[in-house]
Amino acid sequence: MIHHKILNPKSIVVIGGSENLENPGGRVLYNLLEHQYKGKLYVVNPKGGEIQGQKTFLRAEELPQVDLAIIAIPAAQVPEVMQILTEDKNTKGFIIFSAGFAEKDQKGAELEQEIKELVEKAGATLLGPNNIGLINRKYAGVFTQPVPKFDPDGVEFLSASGATAVFVMETALAMGLTFSNVYTFGNSAQTCIEDMLEYLDEHYIAGESAKVKLLYIESFKDPARFLKHASSLIRKGCKLAAIKAGRTEAGSRAASSHTGAMASPDVFTEALFEKAGIIRCFGRTELVTVAGILLQKESKGKNLAIITHAGGPGVMLTDVLSKKGLQVPQIKRKDSQNLLSELYDGASANNPIDLLATGTADQLGKVIDYCENNLSEIDAMAVIFGSPGLKKVAEVYQLLSDKIHRCSKPIYAILPSVLNAKEEISAFLSMGNIAFFDEVLFGEALAKVYHQKRVCRTEKHSFEIDTTPIKELISHCQNGYLSPEKAMDVLRWAGIAVVQTYLIKEEKNLLKMTDTLPFPVAQKVIGPTHKSDLGGVKLNVSNKKDFLNNFRELMAIPGAQGVLVQPMIKGHEIFIGAKREGNFPPIVLFGSGGIYVEVLKDLRSAMNPVSTSEAFELISQLHSYPLLKGIRGQKGIHLTLFAEYISRVSALMDGVPEIKELDINPCMAFEKELLAVDVRIRIEK
Amino acid sequence: MIHHKILNPKSIVVIGGSENLENPGGRVLYNLLEHQYKGKLYVVNPKGGEIQGQKTFLRAEELPQVDLAIIAIPAAQVPEVMQILTEDKNTKGFIIFSAGFAEKDQKGAELEQEIKELVEKAGATLLGPNNIGLINRKYAGVFTQPVPKFDPDGVEFLSASGATAVFVMETALAMGLTFSNVYTFGNSAQTCIEDMLEYLDEHYIAGESAKVKLLYIESFKDPARFLKHASSLIRKGCKLAAIKAGRTEAGSRAASSHTGAMASPDVFTEALFEKAGIIRCFGRTELVTVAGILLQKESKGKNLAIITHAGGPGVMLTDVLSKKGLQVPQIKRKDSQNLLSELYDGASANNPIDLLATGTADQLGKVIDYCENNLSEIDAMAVIFGSPGLKKVAEVYQLLSDKIHRCSKPIYAILPSVLNAKEEISAFLSMGNIAFFDEVLFGEALAKVYHQKRVCRTEKHSFEIDTTPIKELISHCQNGYLSPEKAMDVLRWAGIAVVQTYLIKEEKNLLKMTDTLPFPVAQKVIGPTHKSDLGGVKLNVSNKKDFLNNFRELMAIPGAQGVLVQPMIKGHEIFIGAKREGNFPPIVLFGSGGIYVEVLKDLRSAMNPVSTSEAFELISQLHSYPLLKGIRGQKGIHLTLFAEYISRVSALMDGVPEIKELDINPCMAFEKELLAVDVRIRIEK
Repeated sequence: MIHHKILNPKSIVVIGGSENLENPGGRVLYNLLEHQYKGKLYVVNPKGGEIQGQKTFLRAEELPQVDLAIIAIPAAQVPEVMQILTEDKNTKGFIIFSAGFAEKDQKGAELEQEIKELVEKAGATLLGPNNIGLINRKYAGVFTQPVPKFDPDGVEFLSASGATAVFVMETALAMGLTFSNVYTFGNSAQTCIEDMLEYLDEHYIAGESAKVKLLYIESFKDPARFLKHASSLIRKGCKLAAIKAGRTEAGSRAASSHTGAMASPDVFTEALFEKAGIIRCFGRTELVTVAGILLQKESKGKNLAIITHAGGPGVMLTDVLSKKGLQVPQIKRKDSQNLLSELYDGASANNPIDLLATGTADQLGKVIDYCENNLSEIDAMAVIFGSPGLKKVAEVYQLLSDKIHRCSKPIYAILPSVLNAKEEISAFLSMGNIAFFDEVLFGEALAKVYHQKRVCRTEKHSFEIDTTPIKELISHCQNGYLSPEKAMDVLRWAGIAVVQTYLIKEEKNLLKMTDTLPFPVAQKVIGPTHKSDLGGVKLNVSNKKDFLNNFRELMAIPGAQGVLVQPMIKGHEIFIGAKREGNFPPIVLFGSGGIYVEVLKDLRSAMNPVSTSEAFELISQLHSYPLLKGIRGQKGIHLTLFAEYISRVSALMDGVPEIKELDINPCMAFEKELLAVDVRIRIEK
Repeated sequence: MIHHKILNPKSIVVIGGSENLENPGGRVLYNLLEHQYKGKLYVVNPKGGEIQGQKTFLRAEELPQVDLAIIAIPAAQVPEVMQILTEDKNTKGFIIFSAGFAEKDQKGAELEQEIKELVEKAGATLLGPNNIGLINRKYAGVFTQPVPKFDPDGVEFLSASGATAVFVMETALAMGLTFSNVYTFGNSAQTCIEDMLEYLDEHYIAGESAKVKLLYIESFKDPARFLKHASSLIRKGCKLAAIKAGRTEAGSRAASSHTGAMASPDVFTEALFEKAGIIRCFGRTELVTVAGILLQKESKGKNLAIITHAGGPGVMLTDVLSKKGLQVPQIKRKDSQNLLSELYDGASANNPIDLLATGTADQLGKVIDYCENNLSEIDAMAVIFGSPGLKKVAEVYQLLSDKIHRCSKPIYAILPSVLNAKEEISAFLSMGNIAFFDEVLFGEALAKVYHQKRVCRTEKHSFEIDTTPIKELISHCQNGYLSPEKAMDVLRWAGIAVVQTYLIKEEKNLLKMTDTLPFPVAQKVIGPTHKSDLGGVKLNVSNKKDFLNNFRELMAIPGAQGVLVQPMIKGHEIFIGAKREGNFPPIVLFGSGGIYVEVLKDLRSAMNPVSTSEAFELISQLHSYPLLKGIRGQKGIHLTLFAEYISRVSALMDGVPEIKELDINPCMAFEKELLAVDVRIRIEK
């Protein structure tokens, strides 16, 4: 979908280019020239003449053949120009800055549909409308500032929102981050983030393509495609961090089952990012701080040395790292003494290593070298160095820059003196470095990076399920909930054990049955939806007489179609649910049942396909995991079978798209087996 | 302890003042002059002559009487000079920049003790050593930069660390925050944060003293005094936010009971801040963001209007506010239409109110006025306004500044364009405004401010306990755990019901008893510490024969001193514990018992004195609260009695300082009563 001419145009026309740098058409022309676009550059402006030194055409008709058009004229005039360009000028790339399309009103939406059709008919690519353009190695096609200098190893940035892209770049550049390509999508009339991700995946060249990618997303057009290409890029060695804005609440949507109630769209985003291996961020500063870490050498482990000339920030960084699961390990006595021998009296070298306020560049260098060469237990260094305003710290920052480039271990520079060392920080950044300004925000981002498993999860199911009988069964059912006995059949076919269950519809079948019943039993009416509220569940029924009386009572409930009978079994209650939402791949949710999920919200979720090993890992993250494993002499449950069932539910959801929602709650779990007791399956064909 | 001369000196001498602005002695002199200290200023420097235009004395002996000495000479020379100043020159204030004292080595510690004694003997006040000094209305007695201009309504800042104080001020000034007084304590040889807090409390003048106070703390010297004065200031209308760095882990300390294991020192800090009503922060950016909110008008509620020209940041702010319990309420249809009539086509006014990229200062003004005057449901406004770099936004920021000063509702300015609008942001700050740069960091801080109850909790116990019999009992006991029957007596005297318990030490007492026993019962050996592990607990004993066999078996366990017999009762398990640590007031910890506390860590804690209403409020924050209250037809427990028992434990801890640790776990809770089952009390006299 991405035509190469939008990325590498041999010629560009700015429709609506002008001398006025306060207008998008004037500014983009300025940016193209300023950043030395090498191809042919034309301008269309009905005023004619020469604009910013470029040849100007009065009308699009007069143009020669042109690869790319950047359009900055009122929305209503766009289709006419585009028709000329697509039909007569062989133009294959379009960037439309103009607003006034679908984001405005119905008329705008019609215009947008019109231009979309023109583009598709021509086999061209359109970014926008209502975006700020793109920046890559070939050209700076944006009307905004700043325009970061192209760095092939810099951040590749995909943003749904133009203004957000600008603000992210501003924050990032102030920290010294660099950029390779920046794409903005605006209304995404034709090309959306998924398209670009696909392109970047399919055209990825190891060692050449940018490895760190940031995304600002407001909605997913095609989550499955997004997942496919994000995962693929990460498997190829890329690192992705993203903000998904607009985490809407489940709100007024009536929950039709527990799983339904809990699966808000944000659960899907969360599961999607987790599945792909994307680091999820929530704000601009966090996003660029994460990117600042990703752009540097990768830490081999979670042990940091903190090197500072100021105690307080070192302590705060230690606090946040420890709290977030990283380590600031105590340095061995012998090493600590070696370090101290290089420092002034009163310094400390336990980690944090405190050079004292009087610490010199030379001392800092020695400490860094010692951490690099002698301390195998140290994976990375964080150097916190500011200035109380007495002396310039240029020498220190020069040394720090040298060490960052030479050492094999990553060194993160935290430079808190944004006023006192303003000039020195600028110089440090201009040497190609990245600076962080707040040790705690840095520490939180570092932990986030560390905890994101970058090898994304399997794409395959652990089990194959023969869906033939299930599809056959469903073909005879209407939309809505399957009857309990049918739902149980579906589970059995999926390889999930179900508690022994009898369905009795008529009293005459009752008496011959009672002799074989495994008393005590439970009796549950079927038919009415909220059976518990209607007194439709009888537990611990221990004799024939009660059993018969209960049956009559239950069948008298309006809507009663029969009575399910199950042996009373009491294990650890677990639940497994699954849900579909929009065009997202399904997710499976699971955890301990009963109060754990209802009151304590102790559950985990994973996006399809869920392998047993992924399920197992997530089970171990449950707060109630110690109970599942067995604690204080109490027996645990069959954990591998729990993981297997989760994986089987995942395979079932994939194999039978008609299942909209599935809920096994409770499933009784024991040391040797798991038995589904209550099952609800909702069908939507 | 704070002599008025250190705050308002009529004369100051800089011992070690010089021409060299790269040295503390030279720089502090420069700062004093630059910030126009009005009193007499002297310098002592053995080189003599005139230094920075000031009269210089060769030796301290030559000085006239002088109120305050700022000392910047090597540590070893300090005591001699101080002796002269305290004995002959009537000097009552000392600020010692010099390092090389207790933070360095044993010899330094002795020097520090020496100067402390000199100061105390003279009835003088010392800040430091090893600090950066202080800044107030009268003088800028610091050797660092920047020196904020004095603003009586600005932040009052108390910092244990000098470098941290500098970095906090740099971050704060870049956002436009102002400062009144800044105090740094360094080694706190004599004066510590508690002393200054006491002074500020006792000298607080409503309408004059600064209301927003920030603290950076590394350790508490006297937590009770800290609590007293922090609470008192907050009751007087102050707002306090603080970082307590150095949250050490419980680490290797062997936990002698569950409560012991969970009560790390950080739990005490947390409880102390909560008790006082201090907003707890963890990093510099967070601290100054919170301060930036506290310095502005107070929001009357939690409903924000978000006004922006850029969609993305508005969505991210909405996300974070909603997630953190604030609201961005939908604006009523009629109001929304009124607003839209002032905006360009395509704008939206549901909240966030999006003016579009083309939005003008005039439109912004109209929207702000409408929110101020017509929308009673809106308590505060957040305006997010950056620049894509086409036009200057000076006019917008000028208008924003006017509105911030004129409106009764707080308006928070989030200005993301740190590069594109750099000049305009500077101009905005110079008009006396505060700017935030990241909407999500702002939103998190706003939520933190909102959720901190600023009226701090009671200082009184809800119950009085007659401690006479308890103290009498303890006077006969050794340090360590009380025997179970004595521990139960203590609880009874404290007004806490205990399950009926029999102690049997000899078999001969057994037989006459069995007839009255409330079978089934539990039998528990007493004497050995880990009775469960030794098989020392027999549950559900239902007949005399088993009872007798068990008794013999239990008494055969090495160390057995007797057997406790209790009826088997099964309610909801809750626990109440209490603990003392160092010189902190005791804390009470509580929650559901069993797995809730052991596995799910679902507990709350509060610092003494804990009233019933405070306990009740905290109980309602437990994750297991729905279970305690009763859920799905299951009966709840007697919640007011739970709160009462918590409060009684609190009063017991205050009344009997010999109780180091107390643990009621489990306490069986029912709808009508609560019965302590297992009690451990550790005594330390």
